[in-house]
Amino acid sequence: MSLTTIKAAIRDIPDFPKPGIIYKDITPLLKDPAIFAEIIEILSERYCNTRPDYIAGIESRGFIFGAALALKLGCGFIPVRKAGKLPYKTVSESYQLEYGSAEIEVHVDAVEKNAKVILVDDLLATGGTAVAAVKLLKQLNADIIGVEFIIELAFLNGRSRLDGYTVNSLIT
Amino acid sequence: MSLTTIKAAIRDIPDFPKPGIIYKDITPLLKDPAIFAEIIEILSERYCNTRPDYIAGIESRGFIFGAALALKLGCGFIPVRKAGKLPYKTVSESYQLEYGSAEIEVHVDAVEKNAKVILVDDLLATGGTAVAAVKLLKQLNADIIGVEFIIELAFLNGRSRLDGYTVNSLIT
Repeated sequence: MSLTTIKAAIRDIPDFPKPGIIYKDITPLLKDPAIFAEIIEILSERYCNTRPDYIAGIESRGFIFGAALALKLGCGFIPVRKAGKLPYKTVSESYQLEYGSAEIEVHVDAVEKNAKVILVDDLLATGGTAVAAVKLLKQLNADIIGVEFIIELAFLNGRSRLDGYTVNSLIT
Repeated sequence: MSLTTIKAAIRDIPDFPKPGIIYKDITPLLKDPAIFAEIIEILSERYCNTRPDYIAGIESRGFIFGAALALKLGCGFIPVRKAGKLPYKTVSESYQLEYGSAEIEVHVDAVEKNAKVILVDDLLATGGTAVAAVKLLKQLNADIIGVEFIIELAFLNGRSRLDGYTVNSLIT
């Protein structure tokens, strides 16, 4: 399967969540089993030589790709959640939104020191969430061996904020 | 691996999200690759004779088990999301919470008529969310061949509200 096929399955939704924004709808990618499997295959092939210990997925859509990748690679899955959702002791990081700020968390015992972790989310836009997630994992002294996105909106230049990390996106 | 091993990995968190509630923390299940793989294996074995077309996962933790199960079974994944998150035209269902109500949605083109769908969530408590999700899928005339939970709080009797459907839970 070519990347063109995957790209063609992304649905553009104009004016969502507000006027002037073209939203990239990934639900058709998930609905098609061949495309979904191919995406997970491509992600997994990047790590065939350096097996990660954990996949950390960012709530909510990062859970979908992250959990499937964890199963494929035979590693554990770490949910990075919005503040207040995780029941045990957590570490947290705030990040700026267009209006106001948001906070994400992981459990303090989510990963061991120096554990090899891949961070997964569906979309790299300005990079605010991803940077916060990286900081969270660094608080726990994880070794972040890769940051994986399905779609990258390159014009927003989020990648520059993840300088020093291996950052991959399937579709730019 | 025995169910006892899986059950032992669930962490009880007292007084979360509020005093008197014992929260069942599934993050240790996800963190352990052998346990996570075994859970998905057990779920998948139930459908080796009746292949589903889609797995519908309920946001957010249903995404984790649902997406992995979809990959394992080679079928598509349908996200059942909180209201306002899905960008395309949706159908929606409301359900009661302890205080107030909530709403979940799927895209109108999420499943074809008579498509075989398995609904997945992490926890069966009172069953409110699951019943709403079942109604959503019935609005689209899906054939719901199973409703799968990882944990069932049997004393809340949510199962009785899903009468007429095949309902399974791993740990009761």
